[in-house]
Amino acid sequence: MTRLDSVIRRLTAQRDLLDWATREISAQGLVLELGLGNGRTYDHLRERLPGREIYVFERSPAAHPDCIPPDEYLIVGDIFETLPLFTERFGAGSAALVHADIGTGDAQANRELAQRLSPLIESLLQPGGLLVADRAFDLPSCADISAQTGVSEGRYFVYRR
Amino acid sequence: MTRLDSVIRRLTAQRDLLDWATREISAQGLVLELGLGNGRTYDHLRERLPGREIYVFERSPAAHPDCIPPDEYLIVGDIFETLPLFTERFGAGSAALVHADIGTGDAQANRELAQRLSPLIESLLQPGGLLVADRAFDLPSCADISAQTGVSEGRYFVYRR
Repeated sequence: MTRLDSVIRRLTAQRDLLDWATREISAQGLVLELGLGNGRTYDHLRERLPGREIYVFERSPAAHPDCIPPDEYLIVGDIFETLPLFTERFGAGSAALVHADIGTGDAQANRELAQRLSPLIESLLQPGGLLVADRAFDLPSCADISAQTGVSEGRYFVYRR
Repeated sequence: MTRLDSVIRRLTAQRDLLDWATREISAQGLVLELGLGNGRTYDHLRERLPGREIYVFERSPAAHPDCIPPDEYLIVGDIFETLPLFTERFGAGSAALVHADIGTGDAQANRELAQRLSPLIESLLQPGGLLVADRAFDLPSCADISAQTGVSEGRYFVYRR
């Protein structure tokens, strides 16, 4: 498979999973986008979930100008500082959906990032809440339901609390 | 359509067109990739055209390390300097396929770039040679055959000399 084939597969899996997750989640609960990047998946989530509160966490926003969230929904800073404050503000179990597409080309650093983020995300998910992520997380109170979503193994990950 | 949908469509159109073009071109003639970028389309072309000479033009190479062409096929510099020298070296009509995916987010600058590049590309194409591009070019001796390739109008462009 070429790198062009690979990116098409990855983005298609991402879109299909976000579509599935937005149909699947409860009508109550916040939506969190961890990493704004170029804003593509945020744009997708807000179109699929009109009127829903979507909070976006980003260290240094640099998305397309059309894809910048309103000020009160864009949380700028180091996620290991902003996410605990967010949990204090809204409470554990306040999120229906967390989408995490973060990290770099450094696989080892990405694994460590996911390890450190895991307990923070886990405590934010409501019962039945979903984490959709581009890498594996370690969430003891959640089930890995990736295989039920029809996405190719190892390409994207889904956990349900 | 969301930005995520849009990029999937654009990359899929790009791949489908490159696949079509690599089946369509003559067995003789050089292949030129204008703009290396992250190296995805170069990776695609070299896999689809094993053993073929593919010359890549790039101002400042920054592709994935797996997608850097061999030194003798990577032509670094301002394309308005390197492309005329290339034509002097290999001769007019030496290219079977030119793929151009260059430019920036600035639409006006992109139009000017395409205008200036048009005569350079036109003289390099052999009779029957193809230009596949992410924007419109102005090639009086070529036919715009974009509509024959099945790709959505305005998304990608194909010209045959």
